[in-house]
Amino acid sequence: MKALEAYKKCLTEIATLGSALSILSWDQQTNMPKKGIAARSQVAGKLSKMAFELSVSDELGRYIEDLESQPDLSEIEKASVARVGKEYRRHKAIPPEVVEELTITRSQAQSAWVKAREASDFSQFEPLLAKMVSFQQRFAEYFGYEEHPYDALLEGFEPGLTVKKLKGIIEPLRKETVPFLKRLMAEGTAPDTSILDGSFDIDAQRALTREALELITYDFDAGNLSDVAHPFTITIAPGDVRVTNRYLEKEIFPGLFGALHEGGHALYNQGMPEELFYLELANGSSNGIHESQSRMIENLIGRSLPFWTYFQPQMAKHFPQFASTSPEALFGAANVVRPSLIRVEADEVTYNFHIMVRFELERGLIDGSVRVADLPRLWNEAMEEYVGVVPPNDALGVLQDVHWSMGMFGYFPSYMLGNLYAAQLYTSIREAIPSLDDQIQSGNLRPLVEWLRENVHRHGGVYEPDELMQRITGSSLDSSHYVRYVVDKYSDIYAL
Amino acid sequence: MKALEAYKKCLTEIATLGSALSILSWDQQTNMPKKGIAARSQVAGKLSKMAFELSVSDELGRYIEDLESQPDLSEIEKASVARVGKEYRRHKAIPPEVVEELTITRSQAQSAWVKAREASDFSQFEPLLAKMVSFQQRFAEYFGYEEHPYDALLEGFEPGLTVKKLKGIIEPLRKETVPFLKRLMAEGTAPDTSILDGSFDIDAQRALTREALELITYDFDAGNLSDVAHPFTITIAPGDVRVTNRYLEKEIFPGLFGALHEGGHALYNQGMPEELFYLELANGSSNGIHESQSRMIENLIGRSLPFWTYFQPQMAKHFPQFASTSPEALFGAANVVRPSLIRVEADEVTYNFHIMVRFELERGLIDGSVRVADLPRLWNEAMEEYVGVVPPNDALGVLQDVHWSMGMFGYFPSYMLGNLYAAQLYTSIREAIPSLDDQIQSGNLRPLVEWLRENVHRHGGVYEPDELMQRITGSSLDSSHYVRYVVDKYSDIYAL
Repeated sequence: MKALEAYKKCLTEIATLGSALSILSWDQQTNMPKKGIAARSQVAGKLSKMAFELSVSDELGRYIEDLESQPDLSEIEKASVARVGKEYRRHKAIPPEVVEELTITRSQAQSAWVKAREASDFSQFEPLLAKMVSFQQRFAEYFGYEEHPYDALLEGFEPGLTVKKLKGIIEPLRKETVPFLKRLMAEGTAPDTSILDGSFDIDAQRALTREALELITYDFDAGNLSDVAHPFTITIAPGDVRVTNRYLEKEIFPGLFGALHEGGHALYNQGMPEELFYLELANGSSNGIHESQSRMIENLIGRSLPFWTYFQPQMAKHFPQFASTSPEALFGAANVVRPSLIRVEADEVTYNFHIMVRFELERGLIDGSVRVADLPRLWNEAMEEYVGVVPPNDALGVLQDVHWSMGMFGYFPSYMLGNLYAAQLYTSIREAIPSLDDQIQSGNLRPLVEWLRENVHRHGGVYEPDELMQRITGSSLDSSHYVRYVVDKYSDIYAL
Repeated sequence: MKALEAYKKCLTEIATLGSALSILSWDQQTNMPKKGIAARSQVAGKLSKMAFELSVSDELGRYIEDLESQPDLSEIEKASVARVGKEYRRHKAIPPEVVEELTITRSQAQSAWVKAREASDFSQFEPLLAKMVSFQQRFAEYFGYEEHPYDALLEGFEPGLTVKKLKGIIEPLRKETVPFLKRLMAEGTAPDTSILDGSFDIDAQRALTREALELITYDFDAGNLSDVAHPFTITIAPGDVRVTNRYLEKEIFPGLFGALHEGGHALYNQGMPEELFYLELANGSSNGIHESQSRMIENLIGRSLPFWTYFQPQMAKHFPQFASTSPEALFGAANVVRPSLIRVEADEVTYNFHIMVRFELERGLIDGSVRVADLPRLWNEAMEEYVGVVPPNDALGVLQDVHWSMGMFGYFPSYMLGNLYAAQLYTSIREAIPSLDDQIQSGNLRPLVEWLRENVHRHGGVYEPDELMQRITGSSLDSSHYVRYVVDKYSDIYAL
């Protein structure tokens, strides 16, 4: 078992450097003074290079090969070798000079995107986006695929997912929820949001957020909460999983739901055994599964009536203006459906449509059936079809997301999958814990989190998403759970 | 000049790792959750090892040797090679197995010290202290010295300092200030400190501290201010020099003067050109010179009447109880002389006596004239002689400092030297800026800081302390400046 020891030692070194890099990154976004940026970039660059070199080293390649033929590895070790091996081969598949070229182009693409968005002018981004697409097309060939080149990119974010499977998931979702949205808008009665008008002291929001994170059992002895411009959750190391958040003076909900979202991500990592961190299994089963944990806490719990039954008095403690607001009113105001232009501001009903738009276009870009030059027009047409709104300009349309400028093609579906996984898992949770609503409305989220820990969190990346869903729910991902959840919930709120 | 390039590359790598380590350390003391400690120790251990290995590598040794015979280095490059070469040889002088032994013994000594201090029982620390002393005696032999083995240890903290020089500095200081303290206590009238009674909101103290740091021109765009248990200043990298502080609810001065002290250290590093950081010249000329910068801001400025003339209204803004307190009253209350047992709480008059006690004992331990077993008795006798108080137990006496348990013999004199350097520099500053008091009392510290920047800060570690003092003040360190400062100031305050 010498290869196993050497393998673990190498991964531990990579994880150790990763841990230092995580601190550098967290610090940069929370505490670093602005004049520290130049030196910081050098430090981070140096450590990244060291970690990258280890992760593509010939030695690691040999250990992986050795271990792939070892019959007596533990389940966790096997999973590690499989994930690391896959990642290793993807790295090695791309010639170093192409990686270098990409690095340069990506940096140009990012600044072109920033400028194009500011000017709301797609043509400024178009030539560099075309280059980025062509890189991705080449990568798909390097990585290899069976049916569709986009499958090779999906694999990087959602192992095992393919265009074919995704279509099978999306089609019934689209068929049910697109007409449902139209009915909701035409016949439903929107909840009153005027109760949310006002100004909300930021310190009080911070205190409320802390309580919300304690409620969901986030462990502050193994993490912390800091202010940032763009919230994220980061796993520094075992025992150190940090949440960041942002607060708006004029709106109470973005800060609260943002923290619940990040808190859901954090629970996943706080619930993993330490060992996984040193075997590259601590990123979770997939991006989509990770997102399911944040969406579950943010939406299925945080936007539920039982939650607000418990939480209204907590909120009133910090914001006396809500002292006589009913839990039902807050629940309603937290669940307004409003077809809009921007993905990150979308509600539970319309969110997935934003992803469908992107999935269709990305897929077409990669297989060559969509031309980059046609993107603005195709974007607007798809938005009208799915969401029912048409962007007045490119900044509010095709230029809104940073992903393409960074070469992240195949990432968007994970956001939608997070919603769908969460709903399917929630069906199983409801069966396992019949008294769930009672517990939530009495402020006891432990049974829920223990279920998640036992079934999802503690496995980290040991199972790929399909296997995980099969083990927990008995079937592959099936969007009917989400459809039922959305239709039931919003029919009720909108009095259809 | 290939050796020079390679040398700079190597030092840049060491500085880069050092920068990452500084972030890890700062984070550990400010933000890290308690469950993060185990993983953090591993990460820091790994990076420290990498940095250490580079700093004692044979390559670096060759570059140093090459460069020592290069005639055409710049002044800064020469200084770097001299410092790094000296440090390199000190490292190399100790056999690796002795370093390992020390690491183990030190860790035992530290926990023995903690327990002994808790139990106030020197005998629990004695055997390990004896071992630590014997290590230091061996180190002195490894390092080499001309006159006294303690000189070899002093060199590590205060380049160029020897027992003989130190005696020449201390003797007149002792002769003047010991009787002065007795007269002060017997004949003087102590300022009224009852104005300081009360409770002080911590948030208001933080705001006041921020203003005090802005006043001394600390650049918040190149640093920040955080809460910690044991305050320190840390240079993360050029453009990132952070101050930390601690506040007491029942006392306003420790938080304020603590921050001014740390701010003085920070100004030194904020005032150095970036280049020095990558040449191992950013630790300053010596520990004592670094301490002179903190003492100057804390005491010579912060405990002066012009400062309080400006600062009393600022303080009253945050703490209205001081609205009708006169600047003179605050100045007086900030300058109470109180012979006491604990070094870190000592005032300007008695502080140096605490150091004299330690210097005599340390020197004796290293040359064998003082036995470890006799330390508590000798400590108490010396305290009675110099300070006029006798510790009732070992915890308040010989066990109060952490230094010996960490093997830091030869460090204590730097604290005293800081006071003395500061007073001598201040004499020069007063000559250079005749209107200094007027500027301070109008809240303008720029001329002072510019003088420090020009004469002290920007040189970093380019000059050793004696050369620096010669260049600036025209003579070596001379304690008469401090004697005059203390006698004048306190005769006045105590109405002698």
